[in-house]
Amino acid sequence: MRSAFIALDWGTSSFRAYLLNKDGTAQETVTAPHGILAVKDGAFDAALESHIGKWDMKLPIMASGMITSRQGWVELPYVACPAGLQSIAAAVHLHTSKHGRKIYFVPGISTRGPDGAPDVIRGEETQVLGATEGGSEHFVTPGTHSKWIAVKDNEITGFSSYMTGEVFALLKTHSILGKLMTGEMATPPAFEQGVRAGLKDPAGFLHNIFSTRTLALFSEMPTDHLSSYLSGQVIGTEIAHAIAKNPAGAQYRILATPALGEHYMAAMKIAGLNVSYGKPDVAVIGLRRIAVAAGLLA
Amino acid sequence: MRSAFIALDWGTSSFRAYLLNKDGTAQETVTAPHGILAVKDGAFDAALESHIGKWDMKLPIMASGMITSRQGWVELPYVACPAGLQSIAAAVHLHTSKHGRKIYFVPGISTRGPDGAPDVIRGEETQVLGATEGGSEHFVTPGTHSKWIAVKDNEITGFSSYMTGEVFALLKTHSILGKLMTGEMATPPAFEQGVRAGLKDPAGFLHNIFSTRTLALFSEMPTDHLSSYLSGQVIGTEIAHAIAKNPAGAQYRILATPALGEHYMAAMKIAGLNVSYGKPDVAVIGLRRIAVAAGLLA
Repeated sequence: MRSAFIALDWGTSSFRAYLLNKDGTAQETVTAPHGILAVKDGAFDAALESHIGKWDMKLPIMASGMITSRQGWVELPYVACPAGLQSIAAAVHLHTSKHGRKIYFVPGISTRGPDGAPDVIRGEETQVLGATEGGSEHFVTPGTHSKWIAVKDNEITGFSSYMTGEVFALLKTHSILGKLMTGEMATPPAFEQGVRAGLKDPAGFLHNIFSTRTLALFSEMPTDHLSSYLSGQVIGTEIAHAIAKNPAGAQYRILATPALGEHYMAAMKIAGLNVSYGKPDVAVIGLRRIAVAAGLLA
Repeated sequence: MRSAFIALDWGTSSFRAYLLNKDGTAQETVTAPHGILAVKDGAFDAALESHIGKWDMKLPIMASGMITSRQGWVELPYVACPAGLQSIAAAVHLHTSKHGRKIYFVPGISTRGPDGAPDVIRGEETQVLGATEGGSEHFVTPGTHSKWIAVKDNEITGFSSYMTGEVFALLKTHSILGKLMTGEMATPPAFEQGVRAGLKDPAGFLHNIFSTRTLALFSEMPTDHLSSYLSGQVIGTEIAHAIAKNPAGAQYRILATPALGEHYMAAMKIAGLNVSYGKPDVAVIGLRRIAVAAGLLA
């Protein structure tokens, strides 16, 4: 089958390109730890060719992720929620590379919290547009900054970012809580204890995490369990807040590989939520759907 | 007047010694940035003499603070709450230094949260015992780990530690939130906006702090206001949780100099609380009261 287009998911820390057939199946895939932060002096043209130079120059490229941020190749303004295939496709920006490749950049989206504060996403909107199946849906994308994204009838109605992954890493690496930690092994009982503490009292986060230290001081938790316990606390705290306004029977899908999403899966099950993994490679499906909506593919 | 005893407040990052008269007034004071973390290889005898070597060897020393922690001179077990002058005085530990000084070490205290997790204090209990005036009282000691301490009829009934100061410093120094910050000037309107956000939705801490980034991305807050805004958020989040179970008319006293306590004073006023500063040098008063309760002073 003749290849039809190239899907490009270029984020902060990784580069993923897919050479796709018309039906969206992949002929070839390139994955590299070559995120936008690893590209120096704006040398995006060269970085792109170093990975996909042998792929047909005439194929259109659909690209999403942090590549459209201020630190990326071309900065695009955010599309405001509610945002669906049509509004995002309408805001796609065509850029021609130095090598003559036509790159269609997909913008990120923005929303406003109850207090009016803005929130933003770049990349996850494409994953969600690839994963959506209709009706009322809730997606979670774990990561340094996880996102909880609400969808109604295929349109993203709003979302919230949580700095959970970054805060956990800071506490573990730089705070007094990390000093007593030993070992890296996941310890499910300690993780569950942490999740339950976070779920029970999310408003007490700044207080409750101190127990990572005191439980060790009192020899009430082995030091090689402390990391899992703290991880459970931050994720449990996030979940309690993220689900607070959703209906009790809401269905959640985690958009991540099991390797990346397993902590969220475990914590959301502890919280009694109805949760499953989304399909893999939803970013590719999303890019294809946006390309079709933009009239670039049939 | 003949000096009667020496009060020693030896914490993580500072050393404060007071040569006192019988009535508790100070003849001489030594303050140095020579906390226990700056003492190498357990050389506490030498460190002490370097500061107070010329003071009478025969005077008893009452000492409290992190000097009785695992990283300190003599590790003492915690006295469990409720803890008052009598129970703490009964647990005072006499240690004779290499130079023959008699040092009475005051233990820290411990409590248990609703979930059973332990919490601990070393040093603040002495401040509170110096500040207490009877009845129902609430004390706040700002710092790297702030403490909210409840007192009933001169006895400490419980307390909670908050990692607010440390978490703020980590976010500012190491997280993505610090990257857009400029300037160090305090900006009261941004601080107040942060305090109100924290007070309103303390359970959303891991989400709400992300607005420190997005408000700047959307040019809705000047970058030299971001540090004050984030500081307000963490302190507002702490206050919302710390006061949740206290009666509406509770009176709070901040045990800190205005230089150290001003952010808490401002934030607690924004929260509509009844708040004032405690007396200065309450640690000295507390050490004197403990000495009297232990029968070491008349």
